[in-house]
Amino acid sequence: MSLEIFKYEKPFRLESGALLNEYHLAYTTLGELNETKDNVVWIFHALTANSNAAEWWPGLVGEGKLFDPQKYFIICVNMPGSAYGSISPLDKNPLTNEAYYHEFPWFTTRDMIRAYQPLREALGIRKIHIGIGGSMGGQQLLEWAIEEPYLFEHIIPIATNAFHSAWGIAFNASQRMAIEADPSFKNKNDDAGIEGLKVARSIALLSYRHYEAYGISQIEESNDVLNDFKSESYQRYQGEKLANRFNAFSYYFLSKAMDAHNIGRGRQSIELSLKEIKAKTLVIGIGNDVLFPVEEQRFLAATINGAAFKVIDSFYGHDGFLLEYEIITKSISAFLKQHSKEDLEKELV
Amino acid sequence: MSLEIFKYEKPFRLESGALLNEYHLAYTTLGELNETKDNVVWIFHALTANSNAAEWWPGLVGEGKLFDPQKYFIICVNMPGSAYGSISPLDKNPLTNEAYYHEFPWFTTRDMIRAYQPLREALGIRKIHIGIGGSMGGQQLLEWAIEEPYLFEHIIPIATNAFHSAWGIAFNASQRMAIEADPSFKNKNDDAGIEGLKVARSIALLSYRHYEAYGISQIEESNDVLNDFKSESYQRYQGEKLANRFNAFSYYFLSKAMDAHNIGRGRQSIELSLKEIKAKTLVIGIGNDVLFPVEEQRFLAATINGAAFKVIDSFYGHDGFLLEYEIITKSISAFLKQHSKEDLEKELV
Repeated sequence: MSLEIFKYEKPFRLESGALLNEYHLAYTTLGELNETKDNVVWIFHALTANSNAAEWWPGLVGEGKLFDPQKYFIICVNMPGSAYGSISPLDKNPLTNEAYYHEFPWFTTRDMIRAYQPLREALGIRKIHIGIGGSMGGQQLLEWAIEEPYLFEHIIPIATNAFHSAWGIAFNASQRMAIEADPSFKNKNDDAGIEGLKVARSIALLSYRHYEAYGISQIEESNDVLNDFKSESYQRYQGEKLANRFNAFSYYFLSKAMDAHNIGRGRQSIELSLKEIKAKTLVIGIGNDVLFPVEEQRFLAATINGAAFKVIDSFYGHDGFLLEYEIITKSISAFLKQHSKEDLEKELV
Repeated sequence: MSLEIFKYEKPFRLESGALLNEYHLAYTTLGELNETKDNVVWIFHALTANSNAAEWWPGLVGEGKLFDPQKYFIICVNMPGSAYGSISPLDKNPLTNEAYYHEFPWFTTRDMIRAYQPLREALGIRKIHIGIGGSMGGQQLLEWAIEEPYLFEHIIPIATNAFHSAWGIAFNASQRMAIEADPSFKNKNDDAGIEGLKVARSIALLSYRHYEAYGISQIEESNDVLNDFKSESYQRYQGEKLANRFNAFSYYFLSKAMDAHNIGRGRQSIELSLKEIKAKTLVIGIGNDVLFPVEEQRFLAATINGAAFKVIDSFYGHDGFLLEYEIITKSISAFLKQHSKEDLEKELV
């Protein structure tokens, strides 16, 4: 495993209109690119994760796992704007020599995948065998599979959508309101808005789980409790935990990227954009996902040509995309096997 | 219509252990108590409403409506702790001659209905023909119907529960975190925490509606939007609106009351407590209620002896209890008619 930095030093225009003179991406690779360069697995991480997929997706990535570095060249890029090595709001703006902070030129999901293209070329990758990502990772994957229809052989978007819903935007807006309501967010330092970030995480968590999950994991043993409920401690703990590893600026701008996700933007329509996809597609949805309800994935599967669709149920709700290793592995294996059988049959004909 | 103040000037012990030397309640009545004193309708309001039920429930309360002042003596008491006339955190603590603010002796839902009892007696009410309330109003109603099993002839708890869920507590906890993250909440003035209150309202709103409702009412007309989504404006607008009419202290402590709601506290069990209820009961649930899922009302109806159960679907989700006048009126009318027919038959036997 190695964490690398890719520097791009040409002008790069964002959808917002902002022009960057340079940007950099942190990325992690596992395994080796084979001679025929057809063993690439590109993994897209979600909102607060990093480029080390083996760390946050250990059930799927690693030796002996579905995505085995012995077999595949596995790459994951830290999203631009995030807190884990790629260009971020805490970086110095080369024009002012001060940190970007509030003036960060934020990337949409489309900007993100456009920023990945020069890296892909630099690595000599012309074909991606499998693209996979959940949630905001799946949003980037869909954008790229539309932008370069022949790049991916297989795509596996999980618990994601073609455009971010009004409901999802309302959740993100509440989180940005929480960050803004922390007056320290006006400051120009790395810890600005950190109390607001804790609240934002607590709100987000509600959308990552669901009623039943809280009912099982956070239930009180006694009816007599008046105060200090488990459920409240859990929300506070999760807020603290994120505040120790992330920053409010990255969170703020990444949530705007999620809101702006719409594969139909500047194209004919959402449906026609999905029809551009040429990759063999397996859409996975989670039956009780509060944030990205399964209707969204049903729509993707029904619209993308020849897409397979698998609904899994998860105790964890939306977070199931991170945690339901076994069923996800099984579904993907069956999907890949089916397609490699079909490919073999075509060759024999 | 008249807004009255009831003063209670004897010691009053709260479930928290705090002892009040006095409290007062604001209440609104409509219509007249008849000679036989059997025409009382007691309405319980929810989190941020007031005692003027004709104002916030105009489809159900008023001349020509189901709860018609020509027929009934209608009473609604402002919850202690609220911002509309009853004892509140902004009131002066008679012991210190300063406002309670952070030291407000907060009332549980059980404390609330115990505080209503002396008022009921002062008004000469021994029998309540109909008790009705949604959400936190329904929580109080259930507490009272258990505490005084022979008081109510009919109860109609709507979109409510026997104990507040871990999920509901997590939502409320996030809202209190938002208020606390506003450093002005440390101050001792009526506007302390007002920015945090806006965020809290925005969070709460997510639980009052649902995915589909946002999808219909807050959808963008174009796929090209990058910023300033309708959905975000809506959240911010609703936050401002509440901040103009409420205060963060009342909100904070009322949300704690909701969390502590558990009819099983200090009693044998939740189920046996519900079995204490002697009132004829109609439980109404809303099929797509995110905050008080319909399973909670199904449980109430299945446990309360002889309870009728009606599920309504609402575009508004939880807020449907405030807005679905027609179907609620119809359901209650049928329920009352059925029971008055049964009562008549009993008399004739």
